Amino acid sequence: MQVTDLFVSAPGKAILHGEHAVVHGKVALAVSLNLRTYLRLKATTTGKVCINLPNIDTFYSWDLSELEQLISYSGGKKEEGKLLDAELVGRLRDFIGVTNGNLDTCSMASLSFLYIYISLFRSSELPSLEVTVWSELPTGAGLGSSAAYSVCLAAALLCASGAIPTPLKEWDHTARWCQEDLELINSWAFQGEMIIHGNPSGVDNAVGTWGGMLRFLAGKIIPLSRVPLLRILLTNTKVPRSTKVLVARVKDKINKFPSIMAPVLDSVDAISCTCEKVLSEMTCEPITGEHYNTLEELIDINQHHLNVMGVGHPALDTLCQVTLARGLHSKLTGAGGGGCGITLLRPETDSTVVQTTVQDLRDLGFDCWETSIGGPGVQQHSPVSVKEEILEVLNRY
Amino acid sequence: MQVTDLFVSAPGKAILHGEHAVVHGKVALAVSLNLRTYLRLKATTTGKVCINLPNIDTFYSWDLSELEQLISYSGGKKEEGKLLDAELVGRLRDFIGVTNGNLDTCSMASLSFLYIYISLFRSSELPSLEVTVWSELPTGAGLGSSAAYSVCLAAALLCASGAIPTPLKEWDHTARWCQEDLELINSWAFQGEMIIHGNPSGVDNAVGTWGGMLRFLAGKIIPLSRVPLLRILLTNTKVPRSTKVLVARVKDKINKFPSIMAPVLDSVDAISCTCEKVLSEMTCEPITGEHYNTLEELIDINQHHLNVMGVGHPALDTLCQVTLARGLHSKLTGAGGGGCGITLLRPETDSTVVQTTVQDLRDLGFDCWETSIGGPGVQQHSPVSVKEEILEVLNRY
Repeated sequence: MQVTDLFVSAPGKAILHGEHAVVHGKVALAVSLNLRTYLRLKATTTGKVCINLPNIDTFYSWDLSELEQLISYSGGKKEEGKLLDAELVGRLRDFIGVTNGNLDTCSMASLSFLYIYISLFRSSELPSLEVTVWSELPTGAGLGSSAAYSVCLAAALLCASGAIPTPLKEWDHTARWCQEDLELINSWAFQGEMIIHGNPSGVDNAVGTWGGMLRFLAGKIIPLSRVPLLRILLTNTKVPRSTKVLVARVKDKINKFPSIMAPVLDSVDAISCTCEKVLSEMTCEPITGEHYNTLEELIDINQHHLNVMGVGHPALDTLCQVTLARGLHSKLTGAGGGGCGITLLRPETDSTVVQTTVQDLRDLGFDCWETSIGGPGVQQHSPVSVKEEILEVLNRY
Repeated sequence: MQVTDLFVSAPGKAILHGEHAVVHGKVALAVSLNLRTYLRLKATTTGKVCINLPNIDTFYSWDLSELEQLISYSGGKKEEGKLLDAELVGRLRDFIGVTNGNLDTCSMASLSFLYIYISLFRSSELPSLEVTVWSELPTGAGLGSSAAYSVCLAAALLCASGAIPTPLKEWDHTARWCQEDLELINSWAFQGEMIIHGNPSGVDNAVGTWGGMLRFLAGKIIPLSRVPLLRILLTNTKVPRSTKVLVARVKDKINKFPSIMAPVLDSVDAISCTCEKVLSEMTCEPITGEHYNTLEELIDINQHHLNVMGVGHPALDTLCQVTLARGLHSKLTGAGGGGCGITLLRPETDSTVVQTTVQDLRDLGFDCWETSIGGPGVQQHSPVSVKEEILEVLNRY
């Protein structure tokens, strides 16, 4: 079977509003973050499958003959989009040498790749190919880097297997798939996420697949039809934190002060709903300064509420102060207690202001990117539409 | 009629929790602030009534014969504790030369003094006396300085008129009045406040009269039976602000974001109720560090909520940061937007820490006092129980 060469990319994810509150049955808004993961798939004639993950210094190569022995022909092929094929996962773990105590990023990344690859090609002949992935996203920062990786894998391998078409026309720079194909990409990406995370919410892969904004409530994920693209700064304070510890801290505070904390969660819920409404208005009426004023007020209020929940951090306070000194409004995004924050940029925000702010934040030891939220989900690229420095990395292998 | 010399004092007031929320039907907790106003009443034989207010460089002296002409014998004496005697107020305004456009502190202070003095002595002979007042409270800072003044005036002049006894026994340093007498003091103090403020809530004079802590809800004032004395720092950022503008700002925010702000007010209400419960526990069980931890958490949460309401100020943020750097928790008190803040001191807080913090805050240009909240209301003093430097001021005139 001859596979087609292709480039795909998928965005990262940020929580705009509702982090932590979502654990307690409130709405959260997840948005695509235009720091993207890029994947190049190349057909080869080496009789091997290679995966190159230069971000994490991981380079694997397997003989097709080795991998063919992992396919069980004794049935057990699972229904698509349903639970994982536990038997295949088990065999792959043994093959790679992953034990329960050995869950490093490199092993997980190759495990989810091999799982999707073998699952999609098990009924035909395993093709000889090479996959190279490069991401603009920091890993382990709650920005959905593993989901962006899984979404790229799912899209590229589904195309290679012929399960979905390659949507790119000769004259296009980028192209996206139809709704049905996106559903399929998302379901395979979710399986990749299950291998990496065990029990993912499904939000990260949905954002990576559909892009834009998603409403997440009580386990239900609803992509929102239209949202504006918003310029932001994404800052990683690099203060390490444990999501589990922070979630427990909020729960403890709710248990200690139920009558005080329950209304705070209600207020966060209302912030998410108000934000959704404002963003929707921005797509169907002329965008005004007042829209941005409101978005800024919602950011400020939510940041105070997150501090009330006990998931703030002095580094995040510094982020808020430094950006506010330049008239920009910030909040933490994700688990908090350190980690990342987003800063809204207004359309009229001068590039000098942006550059100075970025420099100020880098001088504090933070990583900082100027990017956007609300952009497209997974897409296929023509080589010319891939940024030069990324193309250079992808073509190096 | 021969009046007795006496010293009285009344405390200022701070809002512990519920400022602004109280405007929207939520509970507020008002506490006595042990920065006190002291009054010395001295019988004279000069045929004059003199009032000395050295804090505001105000010294008045009137002949009794002048004042006697202001008493209308044509009836019109109002019922005690009810509405003001508008006719008397009008005559006093003309006498002092107060027009509507001339509402300075000095005129208001002498007007309320003369109103209470003439009202209490109108049916007998006006006595020759001299009143000197000195206050530890800054004026116009929302700390109830005018109420403390009115309470002192009411207590001293009611004693002088014989309407209530002087409670001090020979061997006492300080003494307080019985409940019924306090009611009378409070009702006359409220009239003084009406002259000074037009439409006072009655909270400030109630705190000045009863001390301790009061629960204020929908216009109803309920003194709480027992509260612990808490050490605090009281900081005046000296940033000028208009209560009216700040109240309007909160209202605008509630109107703009009703679904977001209503729960915030509910949360503030729950903070006041939780605080009341903790303080009550502290009077009937051994005080532990956990009690103080909870009080600190409530302070932090409320300060965030007040920022959400839009009544914060960078000077108040600085106060919170500077004190937190020493492990102390602060919130604004009163209208916010500048003005004053309180910082809770724990029983184990070292005096070096307190002194260094006070110095840090003064170096920032703030006024800062180490004092306490929850102390006694109006009381009579023996001269030896009045601090030496205050006695010196009171005896200077």
